[in-house]
Amino acid sequence: MCESNAYLKDGENEVMLMESVDSIEPYENGLKLMDSFGKEMFIKARIKNMNLLNHRIILEELPLTDL
Amino acid sequence: MCESNAYLKDGENEVMLMESVDSIEPYENGLKLMDSFGKEMFIKARIKNMNLLNHRIILEELPLTDL
Repeated sequence: MCESNAYLKDGENEVMLMESVDSIEPYENGLKLMDSFGKEMFIKARIKNMNLLNHRIILEELPLTDL
Repeated sequence: MCESNAYLKDGENEVMLMESVDSIEPYENGLKLMDSFGKEMFIKARIKNMNLLNHRIILEELPLTDL
């Protein structure tokens, strides 16, 4: 199967966020991720890089504003 | 193989931009795409949506500024 896993970059670490990501699209100020079971996740992040051959999508959190 | 094809949204149409995209990362004000042969492409665009099961990555051009 061709889904990738999504990781959130946290400093030097990469934290698993969602397995078997099927689709990603912009949503408000972040992204909507959906896995192959239809589960959705919303996160204030952007794509840092993705490598489909390695099945890895790395996201990074957007800076918080208005705080 | 798990590469996707990248298309550029042009109004109602989707124009094939690159086949067998292996990786995408932000680059300056746009994106750097690389295919599985190592060919690189730079484009002032952002990811509109991607569907890995369907092997489709849809990009849209960024609005031109400073013109």
